[in-house]
Amino acid sequence: MKPVKIGICGLGTVGSGVVNVLKRNGLEIERRAGREIEIAQIGARRDNPACDTSGFNVSRDIFDVVRNPAIDVVVELIGGCTIARELVLEAIQNGKHVVTANKALIAEHGNEIFELAQAKGVTVAFEASVAGGIPIIKSVREGLAANSIHWLAGIINGTGNFILTEMRDHGRTFEDVLAEAQELGYAEADPTFDVEGIDAAHKLTILASIAFGIPLQFDKAFTEGIGAISSEDVSNAEDLGYRIKHLGVTRRTEKGIELRVHPTLIPEKQLIANVDGVMNAILVEGDAVGPTLYYGAGAGAEPTASSVIADIVDVVRALTVDPDNRVPHLAFQPDALSDLKILPIEEVETAYYLRIAIRDKVGVLAKIATLLSDQGISIEALIQRQPKEQVKGETVASIIIVTNRVIEKQMNHAISEIEALCEIVENVHRIRVESLD
Amino acid sequence: MKPVKIGICGLGTVGSGVVNVLKRNGLEIERRAGREIEIAQIGARRDNPACDTSGFNVSRDIFDVVRNPAIDVVVELIGGCTIARELVLEAIQNGKHVVTANKALIAEHGNEIFELAQAKGVTVAFEASVAGGIPIIKSVREGLAANSIHWLAGIINGTGNFILTEMRDHGRTFEDVLAEAQELGYAEADPTFDVEGIDAAHKLTILASIAFGIPLQFDKAFTEGIGAISSEDVSNAEDLGYRIKHLGVTRRTEKGIELRVHPTLIPEKQLIANVDGVMNAILVEGDAVGPTLYYGAGAGAEPTASSVIADIVDVVRALTVDPDNRVPHLAFQPDALSDLKILPIEEVETAYYLRIAIRDKVGVLAKIATLLSDQGISIEALIQRQPKEQVKGETVASIIIVTNRVIEKQMNHAISEIEALCEIVENVHRIRVESLD
Repeated sequence: MKPVKIGICGLGTVGSGVVNVLKRNGLEIERRAGREIEIAQIGARRDNPACDTSGFNVSRDIFDVVRNPAIDVVVELIGGCTIARELVLEAIQNGKHVVTANKALIAEHGNEIFELAQAKGVTVAFEASVAGGIPIIKSVREGLAANSIHWLAGIINGTGNFILTEMRDHGRTFEDVLAEAQELGYAEADPTFDVEGIDAAHKLTILASIAFGIPLQFDKAFTEGIGAISSEDVSNAEDLGYRIKHLGVTRRTEKGIELRVHPTLIPEKQLIANVDGVMNAILVEGDAVGPTLYYGAGAGAEPTASSVIADIVDVVRALTVDPDNRVPHLAFQPDALSDLKILPIEEVETAYYLRIAIRDKVGVLAKIATLLSDQGISIEALIQRQPKEQVKGETVASIIIVTNRVIEKQMNHAISEIEALCEIVENVHRIRVESLD
Repeated sequence: MKPVKIGICGLGTVGSGVVNVLKRNGLEIERRAGREIEIAQIGARRDNPACDTSGFNVSRDIFDVVRNPAIDVVVELIGGCTIARELVLEAIQNGKHVVTANKALIAEHGNEIFELAQAKGVTVAFEASVAGGIPIIKSVREGLAANSIHWLAGIINGTGNFILTEMRDHGRTFEDVLAEAQELGYAEADPTFDVEGIDAAHKLTILASIAFGIPLQFDKAFTEGIGAISSEDVSNAEDLGYRIKHLGVTRRTEKGIELRVHPTLIPEKQLIANVDGVMNAILVEGDAVGPTLYYGAGAGAEPTASSVIADIVDVVRALTVDPDNRVPHLAFQPDALSDLKILPIEEVETAYYLRIAIRDKVGVLAKIATLLSDQGISIEALIQRQPKEQVKGETVASIIIVTNRVIEKQMNHAISEIEALCEIVENVHRIRVESLD
């Protein structure tokens, strides 16, 4: 058969990875795909020393690629939402299939993009947009197609996981590790997307849609970063038999879909609690299969290229498929998406870790326990730390509590009452707890 | 679109799981597949109380199903190699697609079956044949299609992993746990297939083919069971920072393909070392993606049904695909399989754990170290246990050694020389060691 002609837009980290892997493994990939994958054009504003483009047709205008009639598949690797959206929409308009690694684009503009792709009979593939090299989109969308999926929970931001791992392993502070991550190139100069959970929320939004068959609703995702996690929290969690992970959680409940990214205590016995450093993992619970877990590199040139190229091979195979018979973009047929509502965080039920700084006075623990109890919240575990701090001349102690599962608004109510106690020194620190059973 | 009509052959554990999941999740599956999956006929010699077949067309002759002109997809769930082979070949002859959970059939007769399927333009899907509900075939064959796969290692027999986990967690003996596993129904009355590694070798044979693009060669797989693992080995491994797992390992080397199932010491820091009980996991190392791991239930009615039904959905989608464009059975195009040779175990290189029972005499350790050194084998770790046993009136001590990596035939040579020493009480116990880095 004739080679499939692809056009690569963007020659940054991922773009150069794709070119390099296609060069190195081209023959092995062709043995699988049954067709050669030919890089017919590369669109890039500038060269990348990580990648030798001699012999390739390189254009400085990336839009040349989507307008090139010879090209079957456009590979969008420029990132961002503005030009990338224009580029992808024009590619689809021109009847080209699209492969992208762009999580922000899919999470924020995927509904529009898939609708146009459906109308034009082309495929938009985005495995690389979630968890780098882990084939998680394919696994959930196809591998678990028999299941009613109950929930999934993932470590889907490597930078955040690197920071939390270093804090635990070496007792370092958040600020200290973040600075190192930036030096190592794991974290961007502006680390907001990573540490505030926005990057994870983009990925979680995509996973929730393919798990539950709902439209992409990034604007409804709840996001909380890891900046407020202290070394004390990390060691308290350890003492209680937990690890703190920055988790994306999405769950189908009778009231609606939970969609939330936040620091989470998870039992150290859980396999996913032992996923360390920059690695990613996603735990998926289906009604038939039970728990399954997928682990691997969540970022990096070649791991991401691995998923981009797998998508290219899939698209090559789909070229002869009746469009109505292809794997749907969001796992479910476009006319079969459901309008299950996304729950506001106040309606979500989790257990909680609370760290409460108190003036060391008699009776305060009893008051806290009563306020919790009044909201129907019971205490599963408790540590009272010896006073060790002097704040404004007063001796301050910490009470650490792990509660049972409770609706967040009840917890908010209890916390505001606790904070009103005169013995409380500062706002209550809370971290959600998930058993992942 | 019209429903796809499937015929289910066999109504044992998996067959009843498939019927039950299709009944329960039928609408959700149709939302994904875009077509209804209709059970047009069930062939089963007897009823199964786990599954209500009222309303279905049930035949006591399973061959009725493969001869039923209304049926598009035959689902073979009878197990074994004799009748199942006949049934599958006749189904293919009759132009039907086949989905099977039968690892023995694929590992031992897959080459013949795929050749006929290719000739007849139908698909044979077998996700459920390896690691139950984990979508490992799809992940390796499609998700990692960009990679030159270096090796993979899997815990792919739940019974064996249950036994080893119980031995470690509760200090029990192999015989004791095996008896319990049989009572619990995890292990068959004849546990040979599980504990001798034959079941794992069937699965590993399949994984090796799709990882490296080689024909199925079950007869060349090396198999060693877990029956000789003692409680002492389990606790020695623990002391050295390892866990013992019954691992299937296949690796591409310059000399050929390693294909082997045996007890293995793996570092406890490895995620896969923490996969316990009846759960399965496969660690796959690709050149682009690096290490990825897939975890889940390796057996059971509904986990296996999850994979069977995912395959049915895939086959439904493939109905309109040009046969030359489908995902090839063994991941690589049939005319692009390679003839890389399978290495005999004597040529495989691993590190070793050696447990040597000695008469407690001065100088024996020096003699052993010299014999190892003469074969170029160095000692990475060593424990000399205090004498604790009296064997035939003599005081017997244990020396535990972990060696560097060495070709097996050199180790065989060293061991036979060590066993010839007059201070050696019994044959040397050896367990291979893999760092899985």
